[in-house]
Amino acid sequence: MYIYVDDLWVILHGKVYDLTYFLPEHPGGQKIILKYAGKDATSAFEPIHPIDIITRLLPAEVCMGSIDPAALKGATKEESEEDKLIRIAREKMPRLEEMYNSFDFESVAKRVMKPDAWAYYSSGADDEISMRENHNAFHRIWLRPRVMVDVKHVDMSTTMLGCPASFPLYITATALGKLGHPEGEKVLTRAAGKTGIIQMIPTLASCSFDEMVDARLDKQNQWLQLYVNEDRNITKHLVQHAEARGIKGLFITADAPQLGRREKDMRQKYANEAPDEITRSEMSMTRNEGAARAISTFIDPALNWSDIPWFQSITKMPILIKGVQCAEDAVLAAKYGCQGVVLSNHGGRQLDFAPSSIEILAEVMETLKREGLDKNFEVYIDGGIRRGSDIFKAIALGAKGVGIGRPALFAMSSYGDAGVERLISLFQNELEMCMRLMGTPTIKDIKPEMVDIRNIKDHFVANPTDYLAAGAYERMQPRGGIISKL
Amino acid sequence: MYIYVDDLWVILHGKVYDLTYFLPEHPGGQKIILKYAGKDATSAFEPIHPIDIITRLLPAEVCMGSIDPAALKGATKEESEEDKLIRIAREKMPRLEEMYNSFDFESVAKRVMKPDAWAYYSSGADDEISMRENHNAFHRIWLRPRVMVDVKHVDMSTTMLGCPASFPLYITATALGKLGHPEGEKVLTRAAGKTGIIQMIPTLASCSFDEMVDARLDKQNQWLQLYVNEDRNITKHLVQHAEARGIKGLFITADAPQLGRREKDMRQKYANEAPDEITRSEMSMTRNEGAARAISTFIDPALNWSDIPWFQSITKMPILIKGVQCAEDAVLAAKYGCQGVVLSNHGGRQLDFAPSSIEILAEVMETLKREGLDKNFEVYIDGGIRRGSDIFKAIALGAKGVGIGRPALFAMSSYGDAGVERLISLFQNELEMCMRLMGTPTIKDIKPEMVDIRNIKDHFVANPTDYLAAGAYERMQPRGGIISKL
Amino acid sequence: MYIYVDDLWVILHGKVYDLTYFLPEHPGGQKIILKYAGKDATSAFEPIHPIDIITRLLPAEVCMGSIDPAALKGATKEESEEDKLIRIAREKMPRLEEMYNSFDFESVAKRVMKPDAWAYYSSGADDEISMRENHNAFHRIWLRPRVMVDVKHVDMSTTMLGCPASFPLYITATALGKLGHPEGEKVLTRAAGKTGIIQMIPTLASCSFDEMVDARLDKQNQWLQLYVNEDRNITKHLVQHAEARGIKGLFITADAPQLGRREKDMRQKYANEAPDEITRSEMSMTRNEGAARAISTFIDPALNWSDIPWFQSITKMPILIKGVQCAEDAVLAAKYGCQGVVLSNHGGRQLDFAPSSIEILAEVMETLKREGLDKNFEVYIDGGIRRGSDIFKAIALGAKGVGIGRPALFAMSSYGDAGVERLISLFQNELEMCMRLMGTPTIKDIKPEMVDIRNIKDHFVANPTDYLAAGAYERMQPRGGIISKL
Amino acid sequence: MYIYVDDLWVILHGKVYDLTYFLPEHPGGQKIILKYAGKDATSAFEPIHPIDIITRLLPAEVCMGSIDPAALKGATKEESEEDKLIRIAREKMPRLEEMYNSFDFESVAKRVMKPDAWAYYSSGADDEISMRENHNAFHRIWLRPRVMVDVKHVDMSTTMLGCPASFPLYITATALGKLGHPEGEKVLTRAAGKTGIIQMIPTLASCSFDEMVDARLDKQNQWLQLYVNEDRNITKHLVQHAEARGIKGLFITADAPQLGRREKDMRQKYANEAPDEITRSEMSMTRNEGAARAISTFIDPALNWSDIPWFQSITKMPILIKGVQCAEDAVLAAKYGCQGVVLSNHGGRQLDFAPSSIEILAEVMETLKREGLDKNFEVYIDGGIRRGSDIFKAIALGAKGVGIGRPALFAMSSYGDAGVERLISLFQNELEMCMRLMGTPTIKDIKPEMVDIRNIKDHFVANPTDYLAAGAYERMQPRGGIISKL
Repeated sequence: MYIYVDDLWVILHGKVYDLTYFLPEHPGGQKIILKYAGKDATSAFEPIHPIDIITRLLPAEVCMGSIDPAALKGATKEESEEDKLIRIAREKMPRLEEMYNSFDFESVAKRVMKPDAWAYYSSGADDEISMRENHNAFHRIWLRPRVMVDVKHVDMSTTMLGCPASFPLYITATALGKLGHPEGEKVLTRAAGKTGIIQMIPTLASCSFDEMVDARLDKQNQWLQLYVNEDRNITKHLVQHAEARGIKGLFITADAPQLGRREKDMRQKYANEAPDEITRSEMSMTRNEGAARAISTFIDPALNWSDIPWFQSITKMPILIKGVQCAEDAVLAAKYGCQGVVLSNHGGRQLDFAPSSIEILAEVMETLKREGLDKNFEVYIDGGIRRGSDIFKAIALGAKGVGIGRPALFAMSSYGDAGVERLISLFQNELEMCMRLMGTPTIKDIKPEMVDIRNIKDHFVANPTDYLAAGAYERMQPRGGIISKL
Repeated sequence: MYIYVDDLWVILHGKVYDLTYFLPEHPGGQKIILKYAGKDATSAFEPIHPIDIITRLLPAEVCMGSIDPAALKGATKEESEEDKLIRIAREKMPRLEEMYNSFDFESVAKRVMKPDAWAYYSSGADDEISMRENHNAFHRIWLRPRVMVDVKHVDMSTTMLGCPASFPLYITATALGKLGHPEGEKVLTRAAGKTGIIQMIPTLASCSFDEMVDARLDKQNQWLQLYVNEDRNITKHLVQHAEARGIKGLFITADAPQLGRREKDMRQKYANEAPDEITRSEMSMTRNEGAARAISTFIDPALNWSDIPWFQSITKMPILIKGVQCAEDAVLAAKYGCQGVVLSNHGGRQLDFAPSSIEILAEVMETLKREGLDKNFEVYIDGGIRRGSDIFKAIALGAKGVGIGRPALFAMSSYGDAGVERLISLFQNELEMCMRLMGTPTIKDIKPEMVDIRNIKDHFVANPTDYLAAGAYERMQPRGGIISKL
Repeated sequence: MYIYVDDLWVILHGKVYDLTYFLPEHPGGQKIILKYAGKDATSAFEPIHPIDIITRLLPAEVCMGSIDPAALKGATKEESEEDKLIRIAREKMPRLEEMYNSFDFESVAKRVMKPDAWAYYSSGADDEISMRENHNAFHRIWLRPRVMVDVKHVDMSTTMLGCPASFPLYITATALGKLGHPEGEKVLTRAAGKTGIIQMIPTLASCSFDEMVDARLDKQNQWLQLYVNEDRNITKHLVQHAEARGIKGLFITADAPQLGRREKDMRQKYANEAPDEITRSEMSMTRNEGAARAISTFIDPALNWSDIPWFQSITKMPILIKGVQCAEDAVLAAKYGCQGVVLSNHGGRQLDFAPSSIEILAEVMETLKREGLDKNFEVYIDGGIRRGSDIFKAIALGAKGVGIGRPALFAMSSYGDAGVERLISLFQNELEMCMRLMGTPTIKDIKPEMVDIRNIKDHFVANPTDYLAAGAYERMQPRGGIISKL
Repeated sequence: MYIYVDDLWVILHGKVYDLTYFLPEHPGGQKIILKYAGKDATSAFEPIHPIDIITRLLPAEVCMGSIDPAALKGATKEESEEDKLIRIAREKMPRLEEMYNSFDFESVAKRVMKPDAWAYYSSGADDEISMRENHNAFHRIWLRPRVMVDVKHVDMSTTMLGCPASFPLYITATALGKLGHPEGEKVLTRAAGKTGIIQMIPTLASCSFDEMVDARLDKQNQWLQLYVNEDRNITKHLVQHAEARGIKGLFITADAPQLGRREKDMRQKYANEAPDEITRSEMSMTRNEGAARAISTFIDPALNWSDIPWFQSITKMPILIKGVQCAEDAVLAAKYGCQGVVLSNHGGRQLDFAPSSIEILAEVMETLKREGLDKNFEVYIDGGIRRGSDIFKAIALGAKGVGIGRPALFAMSSYGDAGVERLISLFQNELEMCMRLMGTPTIKDIKPEMVDIRNIKDHFVANPTDYLAAGAYERMQPRGGIISKL
């Protein structure tokens, strides 16, 4: 199905842009732009794009001039039923002090976020097996605590890529922060600063890069996550600007040559746009169209190991590959002179049945050691970290640090700055407790033999249930159960 | 219990047939014929039999002449309550664009199909363990993605038995297509043609063989699934006619010397026929009767390896054995000069606890290789393929292609041609995504080491639940849960 | 707590018995006798005891004379609410032809049996883990079917201890048949006769031994299950009488030196007897009392291997030990000159966490073979057989035959003779189907390599559920699910 | 957040205490004291503290004098809604004879206990994985029964640290008994005495040490659990006083240098104190505050192996380390001259994912044996013992005895003395049954080869559920299921 468009403009922040020629290039698909053709698209644009994205990426001539916002219709709108329910839910939110763990934030966020924001943050690829596996895999690792150790003083501080941190946690890069909070990723920057941890700035942030850098405290450290553009000049400019602004590490994302299928997100978008008769490009009937969309110029699917020397030529920042998912690629990263890798399956949002990072951490460390590549090479993981003990397990298996994504977004979306700070404190308290009870007063006391990884690689799929046998069986009930009928 | 019948005729398509002598031979049992004795049986006959079956299989003298349809009573009938519910469900069907995966089609089909059609398509043998295991087994296989590979261009095309295909999927043979759609298997033929994949024509189709061949496009390839008749002349005629009409492969079904027990289907039939007082032959009390029914002349239970040379003598088509379920039989097929095998447990419809094809694929390929029999020998699998990653896993383990059965039937039964086309496109998009994210731009880049099959042969049966302990335990709840009471 | 009783009589079948001295010896506990002190106990006595038990086991002088039944009060009684519900349920029972498997019978039985009878038949020891494991364990065994074998004729006949049988199934010994059917075990005798299988007569039948023998057909074979009495003369008389009446095998029960704790049964009894203020002896506070009850004179807890020669001296029947649960004891049985063993955990009614018989069958056969003891030594199993494929699996692993207990009781309790016959036919049809689809036309074609027992010894206990993570996760739903709201 | 307090007093048992300087030291946090500032705190104080704790631990001058209770307001209070519900539940409690196992007591306790008491007793660390794992792990161990053994007489008696016991069970130390019963731990003392088992006295009892010692019978044996105070003089006095009063063993707790996070308990406390605006110290935002609270002077987090000789110098009691969780620490305990260890994860209340004691028992015994340290060294376990077979399994793997905690508390909280006695009798009856059916007439007959521990170390975490596939599947139903609609 072809759509012929000869004049397409939209209003953003009081300016009129002609997007006729940009339309087929839009990474988010043509449909959403067409929806706002000839209208003010600011409310849809803002949570998803940094304010400077158009001037950075499009030629100046697309801007056709200014328009008086007052002249736009629909300036005041009534509260929708959905907005009302969300407002009531927000008014009944538990007090922040009642949040005891990351799941509490997730549960509250589910209630108080807009459905499309929730769908975007919470969804994963296909059947969301990898997404859930990410935390589940930690449950296959058990601890081997040591007792009768002096643990009066527990010191959780560490360094990551030479940057000091209050404990080995960082906030990893996630896109579209303004979907969850009007101030977007700056909230994360401030909370990271207050709690002494590192933030990894995302390429696809809602805030501009400079806004996030400007929001940081003195001595606060930041890294940069990079989607490599097909136009290497854009990438070069971004990298060198980052280095100039004091970014301490460059994380090249390698696991997203095409953006994953996230069906919940697709359904939510479909629901929003149901009256629109245009076939969604993601689901178009012919293969070529689908591929065309996916291989946008924003994320170069041709990126490969031979590009590494070029990166090394344009920056002195440590270069790490983010999204490594097997030992072989960690070895390659080391051989290509990278300073490390992030083991990650992109929060289970890209390829379903990709293994969890904690599962492959052990094989990666063992292989690096066997090949003599484990010196001056740092391994990070992200995905599924929800408890202090998860951090402990990762450190024990050799990680230098761990990143959290969704938990920070959920805390931000529900309680803003204070929420993210509390979330980080909870992780810190849990890790301190864990280290004390494990008999490990410092990070370097944490050893591989303190975790039992016998089942780490096992994927237990239950036999199909024998419903006839189960249905015929009468379950036992504790005698006290009768009381419950009161 | 014996039934004495001395004069039994039925009306089909306006002709009267004397089935007195055919009665004991009917593969579907005597009961259904007796139900329509002396009546017009067209509506029951049509979804199950190709139009030419009587002239092909019975002597000409059984046709006693024509009858004027107008003379038949009950020509107009009111809409039944069941039909009305199905009609309403069909009217409320989601739009096709909302179908994002094969499960969506299955769910819609369950709502909009007639109960007996649903029961026939969806049921499996005994406790339906193998039927469900077929897809579950893929969940025991995890991926090992490679990153930093140039995957700008992904080429999924392949050949199977020398026939080109847009990607390594084919529609396998399934019986009684008109139960789900008035045009039956022709719908599948057309959709396969449009999407560039191969269709395997079933022996027990509702459409006639020639109808399915006539429906194909230029250059579209078809294979033939064969139930071997006790009367080898019938089989010989069928095979040679198929070859003459350009069929490219002969798949001899080996897993159905007796048709499986499918209890849901049995119950549905029983419900339909409840007033009938004749004991169902399937459930007859004495063993001999049951066996007599099962060993019909339509599928020869005596078929064995020594029959292979005869097949080789009557056709030049590649001959494959469909329904192989262990390495030993794959080896025998190769030694008998077959061109390949289909690993299959018949969709879990025959023998419960037969292993899934994906489980035995690894052992089959390893054994063939060890015996030097893997050259010029193609291995296919069917059963449980529901995602593009399932196709990837099968290819990685050595399959040349995979067949889908029920998903195509459900898509056909709910949305007809467009449904099947969309289903195939979804599989294709999912496989393309998977190949790109796995770092495998072509089919031949897909390697065994890219799948983790550590648990592929494990069948995890959970210990019986400790209901007393579980019942006494009070589950943890995320704090946000209180919000959910709003 | 001590109870002083100086004159205790009850009426049974119109006779008055003085049970004062027998009271402490009663295997069922004193309480139930005290409940009927001075009353007509026939209705409670009959379903549990063979009619001749008093004359066989107690001295003649306990009978004090006859009483005119008409003189007894309460001769007519109104239908209780419970009886009424059961009567209605029986009237709405599905037709027998709708019973397709053993679970159907169990489900119907649960609805139409008296609660105390259901509790007695269906309950198991402690948490009923072993009881359920018995069938579950078969699910850990998967089949390896062979195809392209001539299976036109399937012959399931076999011999067990030299007795011919239509297929390798027998009805094992279970107690108290009249709880389920007014004619008790005779129903099982007749159904076994009609279907050509063997019945094992229980020591604790509701019918007398001679009633069960008299009910058999010509050439029908029976075995005897034996609880060994502390008074060996009673045992000797029973054994020699059995041999004289043509019993073909003696199965000495070894797994019940004390009768198991079955809590559902205990609760049901408690509910029945709630007004009674006497502390239940089973649950008495001091250990000694409890032990005293358990170690009744009816089942000698001192029975041990050194008793075997004595049994060999009093009978020429083959002697088998029933209730063997490990390879070591099977070896001992062979070394002591027994003709075989029954691997059994007593239907999971004795010791919870005793392994299923199918699990230990493999280790037993392997050990016997290694020690050269597998000739002229037959191994049977019972427990958890619910499908024809279960029989196949047992035969493949070396069993000579398998016994069913509860399924026969449930079929008997719901549909009487016809129910048991149909149940056996279903097992036979399922086994025939299984043998045909496995490519094994006769029993001796069934081989160990046809079953995959990789996980047979694994007991998979799921990690405790992570309720916070599970509760925060929003489940995926197929799109068709919306239709279900119609 | 800082609170400035310059004059803080509370009333306890009619006396006024100035706690101004003690406030920051209070192990239970400052908040609870502040809540009762200037009020009578007796009702909150009593269930948690032994009556002598203030005089033992605080200087005499904090007591400011007496006050007339009648002068206190609120002497009579109406029954709250919650109290009323609990009273009704207690009135409807099942009779004690209906309690058949430890789960029954737990279920009743859940209904009849005050929510805060239930929350304190029943909660575990973090996700309560270890807490539940403790009993679940026993389900991974299966039995290998021996038959044909003379088990007429079963003797369960044993000795532990030289103390005779009726069977190898003891009541382990648990805190705050008066939360569950007004007489607190004395109930446990009396029940242990009556049933001939040993009680381990807790440091943090609600009753004073001497009350518990005074409550014991002649020849009844008691042990002492010890939290080591930072002030070793307090510890020395406690230990020497215990020895003087005839305590037979000293169990130094090593697994609690910081008290665990128990979220249910935290939520319950929060609910109780919701109006209070003071941030809970446990959840305070800065790490230092949290640590300060945790590292109270009551439990010295600096305790380590080098302290052992000092303990050996102040007492002749056997010294055991309680809370050992791996083989290495058991070896260290032996090398430091301890008389044994208790393998324990503190009932899953300290560190989540700490392994169950039964899991590590096998590795501990094997290592001790290999190092020649298993003589004169006794190994105990606690955690998750709920059935007699659990005791059997522990003994088989080498434990000298097992401790129960929560089951005794639940029995005490629901039925007082009689409840605890019955609970212990149930354990004893179950163990006797188990020993008889295992063919082990005495404790020393119980051997390691009688348990199958193949899966003891496996932690099976199920793959994430495939909800789409599960949702599309239509479950099989037994035919009898239709009856259930009656």
